[in-house]
Amino acid sequence: MADEVILLDYWPSPFGMRLRIALAEKGINYEYKDEDLRNKSPLLLQMNPIHKKIPVLIHNGKPVCESLIAVQYIDEVWNDKSPLLPSDPYQRSQARFWADFGDKKIYEIGRNLWTKKGEELEAAKKEFIEALKVLEQELGDKSYFGGDKLGFVDVALIPFYTWFKGYETFGNLNIEKECPKFIGWAKRCIKIESVSKSIPDQDKVYQFIVEIREKIGIE
Amino acid sequence: MADEVILLDYWPSPFGMRLRIALAEKGINYEYKDEDLRNKSPLLLQMNPIHKKIPVLIHNGKPVCESLIAVQYIDEVWNDKSPLLPSDPYQRSQARFWADFGDKKIYEIGRNLWTKKGEELEAAKKEFIEALKVLEQELGDKSYFGGDKLGFVDVALIPFYTWFKGYETFGNLNIEKECPKFIGWAKRCIKIESVSKSIPDQDKVYQFIVEIREKIGIE
Repeated sequence: MADEVILLDYWPSPFGMRLRIALAEKGINYEYKDEDLRNKSPLLLQMNPIHKKIPVLIHNGKPVCESLIAVQYIDEVWNDKSPLLPSDPYQRSQARFWADFGDKKIYEIGRNLWTKKGEELEAAKKEFIEALKVLEQELGDKSYFGGDKLGFVDVALIPFYTWFKGYETFGNLNIEKECPKFIGWAKRCIKIESVSKSIPDQDKVYQFIVEIREKIGIE
Repeated sequence: MADEVILLDYWPSPFGMRLRIALAEKGINYEYKDEDLRNKSPLLLQMNPIHKKIPVLIHNGKPVCESLIAVQYIDEVWNDKSPLLPSDPYQRSQARFWADFGDKKIYEIGRNLWTKKGEELEAAKKEFIEALKVLEQELGDKSYFGGDKLGFVDVALIPFYTWFKGYETFGNLNIEKECPKFIGWAKRCIKIESVSKSIPDQDKVYQFIVEIREKIGIE
């Protein structure tokens, strides 16, 4: 029996994008369901009753929630193609560390870049660039965080790049000028088909941020 | 050559306790170094330059940071004894989910129980009990979250129990009355030697909370 794979997602979600890229890397066909987060579907509430959040991967009727956990699940179940986590336990631990770093730093601070002003914005800009510089150091001379090929950390981080036009415009910063190596990495990633076909372009996400800012009343 | 294992830790840390229990479960000898967090050691700053936090597991000179990542590392490296994560990918994803739930709910809310007053305290109490009831439902009729034996989720959650006297005293709540099944599980866990020898008793942590409250000026 063929696997039934459903992804409950919301198109601008960097967390959802991770699963789309991982599934594309593994060549898995799946049904994509875009959720209206102001009117969540009964299926989403049933499949993620604890957090009620997207993304949720539903594999043969069983849900996997939380994006990094779901990407690891995808990597473990479809382990015959495109391994994402390294096989060495130490390297695995480091990949998990950097993916977690992305969650703790990039997303949280990134939000401040398009919602805050004045001192709070300046602090966010400083912290954001510092975080990217730390990632540049970790990247070193490798093409990808995973080495020669896209890996777990790349899948975890590249979705945030789709938000960068919004970060730059409303945060008034030039990320490429500050962190050219990070942008070089991002540009390599989005040339890969599993990535390019799984994520929206920066203009589309920028327009989405413009609309949210209007809705929540940021001038 | 024998493995050199060092744990940089701080005795009341529930995150550090996770590593102590996991190492005890695997029967690994290690050097325990208790950090003074107001005057962190050069070794800690060198081994965790990013977050500068304990716990850090140092295995043959190489650091693993972030407690759940380190417990997984311990489980993967010393995989011949006391498996903590299940072997089935779906069960693994669920174990990771519940351990993450503990991080997101128990610790954050627990802190409010001994630092907040009035409405904020009441909200924290309600949320805390709700979170434990969710965990009780997940536990179901099993002896441990891991089934018949201590597993990854048990290792992740049981350290918080050492803080419960503080939660109860300053939060003015009776956790056993509200969540008897959760307390039943905790009491089973602390009878296990790998747990009992790795964690402080509730009175000692309570005294520690009393001192912190004095230091930060909570009446």
